[in-house]
Amino acid sequence: MEKVRIGLIGTGYIGRCHAIAYAQASTVFSLKGEIVREMVAEVDPAVAKRQAALLGFNRSTGNWRELVADPDIDVVDICAPNFLHKEMALEAIRHGKHVYSEKPLALDVADAEEMTRAVEAAGVKTLVGFNYMKNPTSQLAKEIIARGEIGEVVHFYGTHNEDYLANPTTPLDWHCQKALAGLGALGDLGAHIVNMAHFLVGDISEVSGDTLTVIKQRPDPKDPSQLRDVENEDQASALLRFTNGAHGVIETSRIACGSKMGLTYVVTGTKGTLRYTQERMAELELYLHDDPVGRQGFKTILTGPAHPDYASFCVSAGHGIGFNDQKTVEIRDLINGIAAGDRMWPDFAEGLQVSKVLEAIAISALERRWMPV
Amino acid sequence: MEKVRIGLIGTGYIGRCHAIAYAQASTVFSLKGEIVREMVAEVDPAVAKRQAALLGFNRSTGNWRELVADPDIDVVDICAPNFLHKEMALEAIRHGKHVYSEKPLALDVADAEEMTRAVEAAGVKTLVGFNYMKNPTSQLAKEIIARGEIGEVVHFYGTHNEDYLANPTTPLDWHCQKALAGLGALGDLGAHIVNMAHFLVGDISEVSGDTLTVIKQRPDPKDPSQLRDVENEDQASALLRFTNGAHGVIETSRIACGSKMGLTYVVTGTKGTLRYTQERMAELELYLHDDPVGRQGFKTILTGPAHPDYASFCVSAGHGIGFNDQKTVEIRDLINGIAAGDRMWPDFAEGLQVSKVLEAIAISALERRWMPV
Amino acid sequence: MEKVRIGLIGTGYIGRCHAIAYAQASTVFSLKGEIVREMVAEVDPAVAKRQAALLGFNRSTGNWRELVADPDIDVVDICAPNFLHKEMALEAIRHGKHVYSEKPLALDVADAEEMTRAVEAAGVKTLVGFNYMKNPTSQLAKEIIARGEIGEVVHFYGTHNEDYLANPTTPLDWHCQKALAGLGALGDLGAHIVNMAHFLVGDISEVSGDTLTVIKQRPDPKDPSQLRDVENEDQASALLRFTNGAHGVIETSRIACGSKMGLTYVVTGTKGTLRYTQERMAELELYLHDDPVGRQGFKTILTGPAHPDYASFCVSAGHGIGFNDQKTVEIRDLINGIAAGDRMWPDFAEGLQVSKVLEAIAISALERRWMPV
Amino acid sequence: MEKVRIGLIGTGYIGRCHAIAYAQASTVFSLKGEIVREMVAEVDPAVAKRQAALLGFNRSTGNWRELVADPDIDVVDICAPNFLHKEMALEAIRHGKHVYSEKPLALDVADAEEMTRAVEAAGVKTLVGFNYMKNPTSQLAKEIIARGEIGEVVHFYGTHNEDYLANPTTPLDWHCQKALAGLGALGDLGAHIVNMAHFLVGDISEVSGDTLTVIKQRPDPKDPSQLRDVENEDQASALLRFTNGAHGVIETSRIACGSKMGLTYVVTGTKGTLRYTQERMAELELYLHDDPVGRQGFKTILTGPAHPDYASFCVSAGHGIGFNDQKTVEIRDLINGIAAGDRMWPDFAEGLQVSKVLEAIAISALERRWMPV
Repeated sequence: MEKVRIGLIGTGYIGRCHAIAYAQASTVFSLKGEIVREMVAEVDPAVAKRQAALLGFNRSTGNWRELVADPDIDVVDICAPNFLHKEMALEAIRHGKHVYSEKPLALDVADAEEMTRAVEAAGVKTLVGFNYMKNPTSQLAKEIIARGEIGEVVHFYGTHNEDYLANPTTPLDWHCQKALAGLGALGDLGAHIVNMAHFLVGDISEVSGDTLTVIKQRPDPKDPSQLRDVENEDQASALLRFTNGAHGVIETSRIACGSKMGLTYVVTGTKGTLRYTQERMAELELYLHDDPVGRQGFKTILTGPAHPDYASFCVSAGHGIGFNDQKTVEIRDLINGIAAGDRMWPDFAEGLQVSKVLEAIAISALERRWMPV
Repeated sequence: MEKVRIGLIGTGYIGRCHAIAYAQASTVFSLKGEIVREMVAEVDPAVAKRQAALLGFNRSTGNWRELVADPDIDVVDICAPNFLHKEMALEAIRHGKHVYSEKPLALDVADAEEMTRAVEAAGVKTLVGFNYMKNPTSQLAKEIIARGEIGEVVHFYGTHNEDYLANPTTPLDWHCQKALAGLGALGDLGAHIVNMAHFLVGDISEVSGDTLTVIKQRPDPKDPSQLRDVENEDQASALLRFTNGAHGVIETSRIACGSKMGLTYVVTGTKGTLRYTQERMAELELYLHDDPVGRQGFKTILTGPAHPDYASFCVSAGHGIGFNDQKTVEIRDLINGIAAGDRMWPDFAEGLQVSKVLEAIAISALERRWMPV
Repeated sequence: MEKVRIGLIGTGYIGRCHAIAYAQASTVFSLKGEIVREMVAEVDPAVAKRQAALLGFNRSTGNWRELVADPDIDVVDICAPNFLHKEMALEAIRHGKHVYSEKPLALDVADAEEMTRAVEAAGVKTLVGFNYMKNPTSQLAKEIIARGEIGEVVHFYGTHNEDYLANPTTPLDWHCQKALAGLGALGDLGAHIVNMAHFLVGDISEVSGDTLTVIKQRPDPKDPSQLRDVENEDQASALLRFTNGAHGVIETSRIACGSKMGLTYVVTGTKGTLRYTQERMAELELYLHDDPVGRQGFKTILTGPAHPDYASFCVSAGHGIGFNDQKTVEIRDLINGIAAGDRMWPDFAEGLQVSKVLEAIAISALERRWMPV
Repeated sequence: MEKVRIGLIGTGYIGRCHAIAYAQASTVFSLKGEIVREMVAEVDPAVAKRQAALLGFNRSTGNWRELVADPDIDVVDICAPNFLHKEMALEAIRHGKHVYSEKPLALDVADAEEMTRAVEAAGVKTLVGFNYMKNPTSQLAKEIIARGEIGEVVHFYGTHNEDYLANPTTPLDWHCQKALAGLGALGDLGAHIVNMAHFLVGDISEVSGDTLTVIKQRPDPKDPSQLRDVENEDQASALLRFTNGAHGVIETSRIACGSKMGLTYVVTGTKGTLRYTQERMAELELYLHDDPVGRQGFKTILTGPAHPDYASFCVSAGHGIGFNDQKTVEIRDLINGIAAGDRMWPDFAEGLQVSKVLEAIAISALERRWMPV
């Protein structure tokens, strides 16, 4: 079986989740390639070494350029801060590596386009970490829509709300700085719900957006007595038109008190409706308009072995999978894509498409008019 | 105690609900005036007579003009089809009657303005049937917001979705005809959620809307083999800006499969969040950001005697009130307003303001631009 | 149309609910008899007079014996304290009156038997106020079971939990005294869930019960510095065997923190399951085991006009009825039963049967053994 | 760091879950010992070999006796059918191995006692796979109770219901045969809820149980035209008395249509209540009676990094962990227990105590009387 040798850049929050998923993936799935946890890169070589040991990787480096150039790396897995995605990806592509990048793909559309062009030129394979669409429950939603069980989709409402910056005394961090994060809630969270809208409904052609920075200044992390400007939006909303004629709304916020993992959607069709919230990631609510009179209602389907990918984790329904398990499905796609040519999606092209939607929303909000994507 | 003599025009769906509420109101509340169920008007005098008997009214007429001119009527209660609201109200006002009208106040802003001017000129009192804000649960929401318990409101998401026209074989009826209904889902359902936004958050200054007519033709009710055009929107969405700086979104649909009473809202503040759905009209979800770490979460408050107006129906919490009970609260406001000068709200001025928002959304959708209200 | 003249004894908590229901019943339903709110009895004649005026009754008395003897009374409606039910009912029956009594029918089985024998001898009609089974949602549950939609019932779990005595500083009141209340939580609340079990599943043949008095003493209401003994149970649980072979469990508590209207049931059949909680009185959850694989789940049915009695209140689904509306259905049964001979159930015989089950549980708990009912 | 060499017997349903957990455990937690996936035993040596490769184990055998005798094994992990637990455990203990056994510990109390005595004599360490108590959410429940946040526990209601045998045409399998399974639903599922009751409330001193075999015969798996007797209970219920004075009820069923992972509990205390269902394993509902009047209600706490063990999986609240992650916590306890002497619980003594409760329920049901544990 072909080896797929991973070079992981960044082992913070999401990098650690990747590592957990690498660790379990070959036990969960019968993969078409062998995962080799080859190298970890961190800024500090000592940290890199310690993390490599903890996370089960063979080697480590304090210089990510070493990693992307290493001949024994097949896939560069970018879990570094957003502002570095572009440079790392381009450098990896230049060395002919496949690239698995966390979202958002880049800070803006221009960068995402440059990256996508480089991928096309080099012919390497890519994957972007929109893991929520890998949840068996959302895969089931996709299946129900694709089979026409709810008819034609006429409306989509989606959110990705969290409250990690709801407290005004939380110091300014990279999320709030354009040079480091690009967009605010749109880039960090909105990217997921735009990808989900693409996945479930299809391409978005036009948007009318509005954004708000509620907490306009935050304490400087180095000197809390000083306030510094928040440079991007805390929350955003947008009207959407899909190319297939459906309308919709998406919203995102990083100050939505009480939303811990508020990725939610309601997909309304001509024959039925789906409702979902990621905080109850094992449940999909399905309403079918043709159910008998007096017996209509939303049915709560608990994800189980009858649904995509679930049985690889557990053969009994309702036992539940977790956040890292979504990443494990994603890594299954990565390994099978690279080792056996299985379809890898969402790829950079999708990452670019998400960026286009997000940027159109931001510009629309600024110019206060509808924008084509 | 002063008598308040009611003349009810129309005893269909909502007229009957009014009648039920009149029947119980004086038993539920210690009213400041005595309700006299004086006269019913229906197009057919025989129907009027039968309905008067069933609903406990003293007299009946087949001519509403007779009712509004009757010297023994104090309040004209308009539950007739929407397209008649204006003419009836103006005629009632001309006779010096107080007017209690079902929503929407009129088919368009011009009519609503004319009616409101007439009211001001005549000095009569008015009330519009936005009953959902009378539910103790939404009154509690208002109280929580007014006391600052969730801080400053930064976002409002509201819907009023139903599915009464989701079936494409349902024949065309008055809801779908501009001359009889004015707007579609916006006028019939959206009016409620705009009023609720006003009640909970405040005035709306600008909107960017989008509308869609999904089922473009429906069978002619007289000859189902013929299809006739649906003349107004099945669904609508709008971005909102409130005068206090909050942003928001409202949506409405009459084809939202599975939504039976889908008036919902999420009010996000700087210190907490409220969530509500009318389908669980006894429950308000409250999140407070300052709750202790590890003990945060949405709390489901069951309406009870500690909340506005509930104890008049039942002294035990969680026992529940129903749709008609909301109307009973509304009628309490009507009677106390007329007999004792208590504040009557939402009045025609609010009905007009709601119409302005709805019309701005409709025009915005047509012209694809932001509109001031 | 035949007049049904009501004499109401007691206008406290539940008496007021009766009055509200009398006020609206003829507007909600096309009754087969005419309700006449004839007379109110209270201990204090002044209170009686005032309450009669407020609640729309013609006359009043400070002596209930006058009411039950009055020739212009057809139905004696007993909303007096439990310990008086027996004497009042027997006296009413002696005067040939029909009797509508609040639950529990009596303080013990011996009394309930005496009352039931008197009814049979006199040939009068009776109704007991187990209003929760009148909710359209629970009527729907009954219909689903009766049609075999969930197969044969194999298990019933039911509760009626509240928390009105959860606070140990709440002074001792009549609920806690054997001479005034008989049983504790069992009599006050458990009676409802036993009736519901009878309604949905059938007769109970054997029980094994356990009871606990958690708060053994409470402050004397007249002198809070003194503690007085609580004489009956705060909570009770019982294993049940039904005559049809199903097994079950019921539980009740008056100190169940957080349960405001905790009448709940889960009815498991060989082909499906129903779940219900009175706190969401408009929702019935239905699971059907024969649903397609991958599309199984509990469906939340919102009560609407397709279900029993709902359309009389409102013609749109999901708009909701309230606690007092259940009483209105009950009063419809009362009036139609007396004026037109429609079936009146739950009658005194059912009230007696409920008492037998409750007493068997209490004795079983005391003697620590299974008891036949 | 000390190596902990694992020998896994059985790689079916639960054995595979163990293997997934072994694979990820050292990435999730900073363990105090090094996990070595040393050997797999299966009846068929070819299967054993293939599974060892898939699950990342070094060696394999077709003879479990070889595994338990192997000098390079420190822990014998028993995921074989229940009827083999005793023999395997005794043999492992005889070889001085630590034993990690799936539940139920044994088919009856006599066997469990023999096993526990052997453990004590040999001084080896043990762990039993009651993984549900390892969920951060149930650990939070425990913490809330232990801190007295809900006061003294006065009532426990718990279930473990599933529906894997709800279909009467499902052929008879080992679950239904006494020689292979011992008890029915009690042994397979009830064991979990008894352990949870011990964990949350404390020891159980007396029980009164009832059981029912609903589907008395099932098709022979080898010849479906023949029916064979089901030898143990499909469902069971029991009244409980805890040594600390609390009362309770537990129920279990393997034919409870719609329950996929129906481990649920309600713990009522003198100051508050907890509610939980494993089907929403990230949510704990907490009611505190001392909350301000008008602001009382059940709060839904989403498990996050403020709660035990969650942060090791993910640093953001509400992202969710899955079934296998519970096993990962369990394996953390195993490794740290063996390598560093950390407390290992639930051990064989607890497994025995659970068996005592289950057997008391079964005997109580048979003899129809209360039984001491």
